[in-house]
Amino acid sequence: MGPHPAVAAIRLAVRRVLHEVLTQHAVHSGGAALAAASPARAASGGVATDHRAPLVLVACSGGADSMALASALAFEAPRLSVRAGGITVDHGLQDGSAERAAEVAGRLAAMELDPVEAVTVRVGRAGGPEAAARDARYAALDEAAERLGASAVLLGHTRDDQAETVLLGLARGSGIRSLSGMAAVSGAAGRYRRPFLQLDRQTARKACLVQSLPVWDDPHNADPAYTRSRLRHEGLPALEKALGKGVVEALARTAQLSRDDADALDSWAADAAADVRDDSGELECAKLFSLPPAVRRRVLRRAAIDAGSPAGSLFARHVEEVDRLITGWRGQGAINLPGRVQARRQGGRLVIRQG
Amino acid sequence: MGPHPAVAAIRLAVRRVLHEVLTQHAVHSGGAALAAASPARAASGGVATDHRAPLVLVACSGGADSMALASALAFEAPRLSVRAGGITVDHGLQDGSAERAAEVAGRLAAMELDPVEAVTVRVGRAGGPEAAARDARYAALDEAAERLGASAVLLGHTRDDQAETVLLGLARGSGIRSLSGMAAVSGAAGRYRRPFLQLDRQTARKACLVQSLPVWDDPHNADPAYTRSRLRHEGLPALEKALGKGVVEALARTAQLSRDDADALDSWAADAAADVRDDSGELECAKLFSLPPAVRRRVLRRAAIDAGSPAGSLFARHVEEVDRLITGWRGQGAINLPGRVQARRQGGRLVIRQG
Repeated sequence: MGPHPAVAAIRLAVRRVLHEVLTQHAVHSGGAALAAASPARAASGGVATDHRAPLVLVACSGGADSMALASALAFEAPRLSVRAGGITVDHGLQDGSAERAAEVAGRLAAMELDPVEAVTVRVGRAGGPEAAARDARYAALDEAAERLGASAVLLGHTRDDQAETVLLGLARGSGIRSLSGMAAVSGAAGRYRRPFLQLDRQTARKACLVQSLPVWDDPHNADPAYTRSRLRHEGLPALEKALGKGVVEALARTAQLSRDDADALDSWAADAAADVRDDSGELECAKLFSLPPAVRRRVLRRAAIDAGSPAGSLFARHVEEVDRLITGWRGQGAINLPGRVQARRQGGRLVIRQG
Repeated sequence: MGPHPAVAAIRLAVRRVLHEVLTQHAVHSGGAALAAASPARAASGGVATDHRAPLVLVACSGGADSMALASALAFEAPRLSVRAGGITVDHGLQDGSAERAAEVAGRLAAMELDPVEAVTVRVGRAGGPEAAARDARYAALDEAAERLGASAVLLGHTRDDQAETVLLGLARGSGIRSLSGMAAVSGAAGRYRRPFLQLDRQTARKACLVQSLPVWDDPHNADPAYTRSRLRHEGLPALEKALGKGVVEALARTAQLSRDDADALDSWAADAAADVRDDSGELECAKLFSLPPAVRRRVLRRAAIDAGSPAGSLFARHVEEVDRLITGWRGQGAINLPGRVQARRQGGRLVIRQG
């Protein structure tokens, strides 16, 4: 009898990602890429203690998603001659968080993950509590991955997290890039990987249950003071009630399609940005005018950022106002953009400069 | 003292659209486009009974949005030498619908709209009750516009309707085209125009109230059997509670940005579709492979539709499977697509044919 379907599902998801990591590792270490790409040959070609075997870490909060991920990594890694370790981050934001981190580390070690570390971080305040905690967490994971020489860090985000991220992006109303959610592969050299991005949260939970893995429910996840928590417990269920059960899957698919679309348009805009400049590198209004609006606005946004306007403060309405210098020219004056950047039309050229 | 802000807002929205219609009318009728584009000169250059003056119709259900629209059209049209008429459609789906249509027609005539017609349609069953009613309604509006020689038909959709449409598209999960909602201008020769697409429903309601216009609340709009009604009364409010009051505006902005992005990518795909063919018109796999995924999938989708696959039955997962003939080639057989269309890889070419 095989494993429970939920356990089979989480293991398959991790196995796929480990194959990708092995392929990449073989390429980077100058080894035989083809051998590593073929799981059977890779498995027979090395031993788990081989120092050249890649190390894959799991970032684990102790919650159901990342505990399920850790259990699947612990099961699959030895079979593919991958070394597997775990990191849990103590954000120091709640009483007893240090004890809990030590407990999670103990559970990871009990799965025979090695090395296992509990890393304490200091959470700043920049960007609000959720963003500050995230920044501190990724900084700690980056540091641990560098120090331990890890090829990859697995994150437990599920399709449900992805759906929530898409809705959060939708609420910004800043276009398809913000609808593209989390990438399956991200970070420097593709360090972070999210094997569960197409798996629902319920499957991860079930896999913990049938494997008798204790899980810890972060009270923040149910705290209505947090936008994501309100979305999870009220917004998304109401949306599912109105639109049907397929909403989470539809949102996750929207993320993938939007990401590809945004990538393609960014590459077009990068090409166009070179084509619309004169010999001295200034933007020519007539050439800008002939671009499709979606491409022109990306060129203008990029030009403003290159001139010193901070990306995070440069909104769609700013770019639209600059765009009107091209599409609705009636002699208007310079447009002020964040970061003391000004855009003005001068003799058929669009000049964007920091003042 | 000027009009109430809500009344000023609906009139401004209609005035802007009438200027556009006048410009287009002047161009099409061979008149002086510049004169018509300048409202002051256009207004002084004609009289309301001039047969060359364009006719603009309002489609009016008797609900608050379209009654507000009718009132604004009745106010603005004479000032711009535009003739204004109204159409109300009796779908024949509820007891007393004929009497109500006659009552709405009476209210439109009382606003001095002329001509005014109540048109009875027969609603079919294709595509479900909402789609069938919509198809019948637009067919009747098209017929009336043709017969009366109207330059434009105004529709009362508000920003709230747009937000609902975006969420309905999101639930399909079929990409950014389905997120682009309703166009401000659509239909043959840009016949349909939606002046209120950036105006909230509350403003339209308020404008009716302060102008003492009686409005009729369609019981369908509150019937939880309808997806849109559930979205309006439960889904969107819950989303606003979780994400904040700006959600409707953000969704409407997403619609506009997505529409521009989808247009740009479609034009890229149309160009690419020509570039990736060999002399005999077959798709070359190597050239397809070098396209960005977002563009390649659009080329493949278009090729399948051109081969006879019905657009409405061709889903993202079909296109993805065809895409794997290019990006994940391992000798797989022909892919069956809706409409008895098959896609197969043959000697470096991708052949898509009806069987």
